Amino acid sequence: MIVTPQTRRFTDPLPLQSGAVLPAYELVYETYGTLNVGRTNAVLVCHALNASHHVAGWHADASGQPLARSEGWWNNMIGPGKPVDTDRYFVVSVNNLGSCFGSTGPTHINPATGQPWGADFPVVTVEDWVHAQARLLDALGIETLAAVMGGSLGGMQTLSWTLQYPDRVRHAVVVASAPNLTAENIAFNEVARRAIVTDPDFLGGHYLREGTLPRRGLRIARMIGHITYLSDDVMNEKFGRSLRPADDEDPAAVAELAYRYSTLDVEFQIESYLRYQGDKFSEYFDANTYLLITRALDYFDPARAFDGNLSAALARARAKFLLISFTTDWRFSPARSREMVKALLENRREVSYCEIDAPHGHDAFLLDDARYHHAVRAYFDRTVGESLTAEVAHG
Amino acid sequence: MIVTPQTRRFTDPLPLQSGAVLPAYELVYETYGTLNVGRTNAVLVCHALNASHHVAGWHADASGQPLARSEGWWNNMIGPGKPVDTDRYFVVSVNNLGSCFGSTGPTHINPATGQPWGADFPVVTVEDWVHAQARLLDALGIETLAAVMGGSLGGMQTLSWTLQYPDRVRHAVVVASAPNLTAENIAFNEVARRAIVTDPDFLGGHYLREGTLPRRGLRIARMIGHITYLSDDVMNEKFGRSLRPADDEDPAAVAELAYRYSTLDVEFQIESYLRYQGDKFSEYFDANTYLLITRALDYFDPARAFDGNLSAALARARAKFLLISFTTDWRFSPARSREMVKALLENRREVSYCEIDAPHGHDAFLLDDARYHHAVRAYFDRTVGESLTAEVAHG
Repeated sequence: MIVTPQTRRFTDPLPLQSGAVLPAYELVYETYGTLNVGRTNAVLVCHALNASHHVAGWHADASGQPLARSEGWWNNMIGPGKPVDTDRYFVVSVNNLGSCFGSTGPTHINPATGQPWGADFPVVTVEDWVHAQARLLDALGIETLAAVMGGSLGGMQTLSWTLQYPDRVRHAVVVASAPNLTAENIAFNEVARRAIVTDPDFLGGHYLREGTLPRRGLRIARMIGHITYLSDDVMNEKFGRSLRPADDEDPAAVAELAYRYSTLDVEFQIESYLRYQGDKFSEYFDANTYLLITRALDYFDPARAFDGNLSAALARARAKFLLISFTTDWRFSPARSREMVKALLENRREVSYCEIDAPHGHDAFLLDDARYHHAVRAYFDRTVGESLTAEVAHG
Repeated sequence: MIVTPQTRRFTDPLPLQSGAVLPAYELVYETYGTLNVGRTNAVLVCHALNASHHVAGWHADASGQPLARSEGWWNNMIGPGKPVDTDRYFVVSVNNLGSCFGSTGPTHINPATGQPWGADFPVVTVEDWVHAQARLLDALGIETLAAVMGGSLGGMQTLSWTLQYPDRVRHAVVVASAPNLTAENIAFNEVARRAIVTDPDFLGGHYLREGTLPRRGLRIARMIGHITYLSDDVMNEKFGRSLRPADDEDPAAVAELAYRYSTLDVEFQIESYLRYQGDKFSEYFDANTYLLITRALDYFDPARAFDGNLSAALARARAKFLLISFTTDWRFSPARSREMVKALLENRREVSYCEIDAPHGHDAFLLDDARYHHAVRAYFDRTVGESLTAEVAHG
């Protein structure tokens, strides 16, 4: 499936939760499948921290050939015949405001100054993103969503959709998510932010204007993030205490491997893996975007306006829910999903919940696990599909 | 109890595991209690990452008054009438080589250059520290230890004592420790090291020579460390999602607290706590010492020479063991202690094991928990004490 991003410009100012107003902005998005005549089969997919609107399929070069490494980040989940079947559903995915992948963000030009927004880009929240996504759906002529879906931070947007636009969402699929961050989650975000902000090349967030890039800070931020995406078990299985080079590359060479007794050189494979992840990330990700997105995570807390009572906060929701969590996910643990299940049941919502016994930690939500994909497929084939059929029969 | 550190200079070169040789060195140490005539009541206490020889009691000013904030780091455990009773035992604690608290380390002058050692200080290992500690005990006329004891990295030294000097250790008390680091443990150490090494003020580790200090990197390193010392539960209980200032300081002010929508300012209490810990640490700790000590942790792995077979590695041990772990310690989890217990039992060693249900994470080993202290007290009163009495009766 070859896909092409589209861009839509909005000139109606967007009031943000912070009180700031974004005067005009662009949203980059992709769609897969066909909107049916009744406009009832739309599914919105929300992206997480370092992902984008490019959820499924491949991008193509000028001759129409798929570009290497251009696969969508949830291409195992969404597409023709896949758990979210684009032969049946019209899938929309939007790059969020503040991102560095196309939609208006800190790397774009601030019309007030003619310089990149940088640190002056306003703080955006999950709620702001949902409002912006709703405007795009308005523009696409989609009033009601058959489903909203997302993992991690995308799951937060999904939950927020059911609260901000309860009548526009039939089903919500919330994967590996949480109703807010714990102190430990915030702590990891804060260390990542401090690494970026205290990088001398950050220059108060105006590094683009000054021609620098806070790569050192971004590398550290990404390394920290990466540790929290993986489970202890999968790290031990994948890397353990193996020394460089990979043990299976040249068994003879490995037999001779000894500690080099250095504090600076790579000794363990896990070290070279993390350095590689950090280096790669620092080449393409924007530091201000990283700050904005981790803050959106920190701030999300629908129960906050209800004295911490999640059940009261979710009383507005009208959607039916599928929640999924993974046993070894210590970033957004199953206990956090169960909090949401409990609060929804207290509101007599229809809720399906799957706790998948998977070794991969938080990353599991992106991986091709048969039980996980089966649960999503079954939910879309039956529950979402039934309401679609009912709608058609009714209409 | 007012205590005074002592210093002993060694001129016999110390061959290190790396192959390097430390030509001459000083060890700073403290002792508490009195060595008995038979020299059978000595207990060696080994320190962890950022601690020192100053285990118990208080330091005094010139007039003999206790200095503020000079309490030993394990003063709740060690002293007259305490679980390790200095009325009965002669406790010795040694600052390890490579430290920044007195014993020869990277902040000292390298006699070969007349400049601070800095990054040229040789890599030291747990085994090297144990050898150096043994030399100090030789100098103090202590052949056999009634017990060796330590938590975390101190527990690794304790375990190593039973393998390097099996005939010199009667009892080993290993608290909140592990037989080696997991990939995740190494990963956190590596991120901390990268934060330090990529700080532009690190200058290849020769910052003292150049008159700078890599404080930014040290701050990040400490923040990461601190997260791993605490449990998710205790962080939620202590900080949760509370905003600055502390919720209990001025309830009226707190009621008005709202998000400030900033990526740079402190919003959550956990953030100001971590920043404070990082700032404080960066004022007194040496960056090269941090690199050396985290590397000593990474390298420790007695099973490595036995193809990963811990049981085979521990076959040399002759001591009796008390192991203690804490349920919420995710840095050195109870599972890691149980690995050691299992390997010791396979070698028919006498082992007591306590798994303490405590909410405080890895930090629990430093805290005053009644069940924990009772276990240590009982072990020293009965098991260690009995062998002491037997020795005296025998001798």
